[in-house]
Amino acid sequence: MNTLPAGDPAPETDRTGAPGLDERTARVARLTRAAGASFAVLSGYDAVFDATGLRVPQELGVPFVSGGPDLALVAPDGETWLVVPRMRAGAAHASRADHVIEYGDDTLGLEPLAPRYLSGVRAALAALPARGDVLIQPDSLTLPVAEALRERGHDLRDITDPLRRARMVKTPAEWAALQRCADLTSAAQRVARQAARAGRTELEVFADIRAVWDRAVGHRSEVTGDFMTGIERTAAIVGWATDRVLREGDPVIADLAPRLDGYWGDSASTFVLGEPDPRLRAMHAAVRGALDAGLAAVRPGITAAALDAVVREAMPGFSYPHHTGHSVGAASHEFPTISPGVEVPLEEGMVILLEPGAYDPEVGGVRLEWMIRVGADGAEIMSDFPLDL
Amino acid sequence: MNTLPAGDPAPETDRTGAPGLDERTARVARLTRAAGASFAVLSGYDAVFDATGLRVPQELGVPFVSGGPDLALVAPDGETWLVVPRMRAGAAHASRADHVIEYGDDTLGLEPLAPRYLSGVRAALAALPARGDVLIQPDSLTLPVAEALRERGHDLRDITDPLRRARMVKTPAEWAALQRCADLTSAAQRVARQAARAGRTELEVFADIRAVWDRAVGHRSEVTGDFMTGIERTAAIVGWATDRVLREGDPVIADLAPRLDGYWGDSASTFVLGEPDPRLRAMHAAVRGALDAGLAAVRPGITAAALDAVVREAMPGFSYPHHTGHSVGAASHEFPTISPGVEVPLEEGMVILLEPGAYDPEVGGVRLEWMIRVGADGAEIMSDFPLDL
Repeated sequence: MNTLPAGDPAPETDRTGAPGLDERTARVARLTRAAGASFAVLSGYDAVFDATGLRVPQELGVPFVSGGPDLALVAPDGETWLVVPRMRAGAAHASRADHVIEYGDDTLGLEPLAPRYLSGVRAALAALPARGDVLIQPDSLTLPVAEALRERGHDLRDITDPLRRARMVKTPAEWAALQRCADLTSAAQRVARQAARAGRTELEVFADIRAVWDRAVGHRSEVTGDFMTGIERTAAIVGWATDRVLREGDPVIADLAPRLDGYWGDSASTFVLGEPDPRLRAMHAAVRGALDAGLAAVRPGITAAALDAVVREAMPGFSYPHHTGHSVGAASHEFPTISPGVEVPLEEGMVILLEPGAYDPEVGGVRLEWMIRVGADGAEIMSDFPLDL
Repeated sequence: MNTLPAGDPAPETDRTGAPGLDERTARVARLTRAAGASFAVLSGYDAVFDATGLRVPQELGVPFVSGGPDLALVAPDGETWLVVPRMRAGAAHASRADHVIEYGDDTLGLEPLAPRYLSGVRAALAALPARGDVLIQPDSLTLPVAEALRERGHDLRDITDPLRRARMVKTPAEWAALQRCADLTSAAQRVARQAARAGRTELEVFADIRAVWDRAVGHRSEVTGDFMTGIERTAAIVGWATDRVLREGDPVIADLAPRLDGYWGDSASTFVLGEPDPRLRAMHAAVRGALDAGLAAVRPGITAAALDAVVREAMPGFSYPHHTGHSVGAASHEFPTISPGVEVPLEEGMVILLEPGAYDPEVGGVRLEWMIRVGADGAEIMSDFPLDL
């Protein structure tokens, strides 16, 4: 254990007193101590990765070898336990977790898995005190695990909000990992511009984009985002690549978001195959101006809501019905969202996306998105790809 | 509603009395009635699809617009409700569900989503009687939904086992859907043999395979399975495509499993780039003989355990540490698994995979897998691709 998965940054210097404890694990441990809780049970895929370095696959669908979500248990001193199916135990042993509880029977497929999962959970709990409050993530914690905790007499308390706030400001290891994600999105954006040609399908272009990521991660890459071409599809704001054939004059929105070593990148560009419609050109200029206004306004202390307003107000006559941006990390969308009403001040060391857009059913859509580190003196741009139409 | 998603088969004739009710929905309704329950709450992605036809994406990871798993509520008379995030409401409206409860705020990303999800759940529950037992899937039901049900005074009962038994025998619509999945795996298997050449990476070959499926489904295909080349990787039984470069003489295991219109296909072939090692040839002959023995033994009435034994005993001197096969449908691995100890008789109309293998660290691995419908007179083979080495 305490071996990092391939490609992961080195462990960081301890900031909490426990020698050698990774800062990402330490901040969960601190939350647990601050809450006076006995331990935390993490069930969200991103929280499990954050606390232990175990990358729970996100492209596979629900694994048939699992009896429930992978769990990470974190004690107030930072000691960690993972509960994982045996087929994925190798990855767990290669993580930062101190203890790995395997359940199931490798690949023989004996039924049913749920009791085996629960036995694994109970085995992990046996090492932890059977008293006091336990911090949980209710959105992903399944009922049998909650009941196993309550049977031991624990009161369950929601860690969701404190945890997402604790993860807002990234650590140096996370900055490095997210910069690699930004580089990967930038490389894909450049390929997207070359690969998008009249006569090809969106899926064929997207396959070229995916190949960039597959090569970089060395296995099937996990992806989210949008790839849309033509007036109707780009005006619809969101959508995966389809079998639509690209045509001369099409607008293209490439909103590209791959996962690398457990962290997510994100990015968006808009370009046209051939000569842009003057109306699309005007939309693009407005969105570009709004993004620039946002970049200029980023600084520690400005609230997400105020930044949102700066961007929206910088494009009079145009608007978008979605958020202005979001934080990013072990999840593709983290707290805070850059949206109206989110009165959360930015802090130095956060990593965010700004992604203003404009959409017109008769003209098509435009979206531009760059990844930014909030520096002491303002935005430090992490993306490196052209935003031209 | 009652509009089927594109590519889905036509609704089937009602068999339970409610006019026009799809048989897949009807069997959940029958379970609910048989249990004397007030209604069922389904949270597994495959159960939600089975009951309503809503395809919950499985390649996207955890969607950032969701406050919890998509839910389908099924009343004893077959009336259905879906609880989905607003961004996916269009798909829900195109499903067979009678009612769609949307939550969230399209793409503005206001925080937090969990209370909005729970409000959606409560809105759906308001249409249902606040008394009696409720059937649930504990492995995927999250704590807040369970608590919302208990607050209304419901007792919660586990539907997992009766539901997977009710879904064992496929309906005519499912046979048709699964045959299309089998055809798609067969097409991919033929491409795999052509695309696998010395000098290419596994990822490059897998991209050609994925392109077959992307074209067929018209959007990014959802995939699982394995693609492994070389002695070490094929002997390891499981693994996604990597950046390994294929070499002359390599064994290749292509275990290909795409999702089409909500159903999963599955398949495996093993072949060699060039001249096979005589020891691999012997392994392949043994596995081929074991598969043939299994195909000959398939008939209504034989238990999964007995079928498993027939296959294992047909390859003396060779063995595999995994299941002999499994059922398939809206999930890639359904009940029953063809494994020791599974004393479940096969029934006419089930669709299963048989996948014996042999693995040797010095020689490599072999796995052969065909999709089969259990017919009145024996195995009806659905796969159509070569099993030669």
